[in-house]
Amino acid sequence: MPDHPNGSPLSGTLYGISLGPGDPGWITRQAWERLHSDAVWAYPVRKAGARSFALDIARRAGIAIPPGAMALQFPMTHDPDILARYWLAAAQTVLPVLLSGRDVGFLVEGDASTYSTFGHLARTVAALAPQVRIQTLPGVSAYHAAAASTNTALADPDDVIAVLPAAYGLTAIARLLDDVDTLVLLKVKPLLDDILALLEQRALLPHARFIEKAGTPEERIVTDVTRLRGATVNYLSLLLVRNPHRVRGERLRGCRKKTATKEF
Amino acid sequence: MPDHPNGSPLSGTLYGISLGPGDPGWITRQAWERLHSDAVWAYPVRKAGARSFALDIARRAGIAIPPGAMALQFPMTHDPDILARYWLAAAQTVLPVLLSGRDVGFLVEGDASTYSTFGHLARTVAALAPQVRIQTLPGVSAYHAAAASTNTALADPDDVIAVLPAAYGLTAIARLLDDVDTLVLLKVKPLLDDILALLEQRALLPHARFIEKAGTPEERIVTDVTRLRGATVNYLSLLLVRNPHRVRGERLRGCRKKTATKEF
Repeated sequence: MPDHPNGSPLSGTLYGISLGPGDPGWITRQAWERLHSDAVWAYPVRKAGARSFALDIARRAGIAIPPGAMALQFPMTHDPDILARYWLAAAQTVLPVLLSGRDVGFLVEGDASTYSTFGHLARTVAALAPQVRIQTLPGVSAYHAAAASTNTALADPDDVIAVLPAAYGLTAIARLLDDVDTLVLLKVKPLLDDILALLEQRALLPHARFIEKAGTPEERIVTDVTRLRGATVNYLSLLLVRNPHRVRGERLRGCRKKTATKEF
Repeated sequence: MPDHPNGSPLSGTLYGISLGPGDPGWITRQAWERLHSDAVWAYPVRKAGARSFALDIARRAGIAIPPGAMALQFPMTHDPDILARYWLAAAQTVLPVLLSGRDVGFLVEGDASTYSTFGHLARTVAALAPQVRIQTLPGVSAYHAAAASTNTALADPDDVIAVLPAAYGLTAIARLLDDVDTLVLLKVKPLLDDILALLEQRALLPHARFIEKAGTPEERIVTDVTRLRGATVNYLSLLLVRNPHRVRGERLRGCRKKTATKEF
């Protein structure tokens, strides 16, 4: 094993490589360079043999998957014991590669710091081997891409944003709506009709945009969200809700007048 | 003037080109390509003759500024009448270029949908000339970059995020802290000591990270934020605050156990 200049064993770096939510054009130059380095690839799958959404983005970018790429399993469950077991298995898969001195690049759909499995992998690796260097390469998140694709301002200069998995339920959604200018609701599928009813009560239907699989070949944008009533949507879908009715409280250094609509 | 296939006059496209918050490596491949197209550049300045932060990123990326690049003034004021006047002047500067059939690329620091002047420019152009096509290219936001640079999870899969200009004041900050797992406080300069006092009351000082000018040659990261007491910081600075004490309410489909810390 090669030695570190200061005498401690040299290990590779674990990179969280953000690829953006779908369009290969949304990969940053830094991530692109790392994908073409000699780092060993790792990528998340829901179960053994399943497709990896992150790997698909690299594929659509025209990059050949290098030999030795490792599928790491992150199952869809909220059970903490099951999750901990899979995080440990994932960390133990990449660790020998890192300790042999090679870098590992974990491919992440969207941004690696935001609703990503990379945090779990990085924390578990750090717990097992604190000497391993970890570097997160930031990327475009699904909601920034959704705002861009719909030409919606996610936030004007004095605005407040909240991002919330819809599963928190209507009470939480309703409360946050009072406090923010833009609410981003993720994974709206199971609650969509209830959310639409709430938005109708609040007269916010005209200010909501629905985006499914942003940036992928299957991207779907719905600007008249009333058309979604009773519809079944994809798991990778979100709602951007602008709240022009928000009553702004105290604000230091003066309060800017609110314009009626925030779409272009 | 060339004609559109369907007979209406052909105009150029107004692009919002997100460059990320500072590191030229954070520019996406799509934005990079657009910077090298024949679009006429436009870029924001605070006042005539001032440096443009967005233009500096392109410069650091090694791109020669093409001839004819237009500085557009967006002054730092909250006065709606003054702002409207400058937005109109900016739109009137780019409009003749667009109507001549050429594309205009407006360079944006960070993400063009998020706390950016691009929204104002695009809405004003759309009001004056609805036939102009507008396209927003998404990018890395300052807070995603800050999370990456500090290896902090902005959000684990079930988390709630809020992003708030600190000028909303302590009451708003304190209320949102109860409802979210991560609070991103922007432009903390004028309120920094008060915010640190609030975080101390809430036992959140160990969970806060300070980042100034993320990704630029002057980037500064402070992980022990108590060192900032009484300090003067840059205007382009933010705090990431993780709230491990948050009491989670109702959540559909089960509630995941919260781990004690969210940093790697």
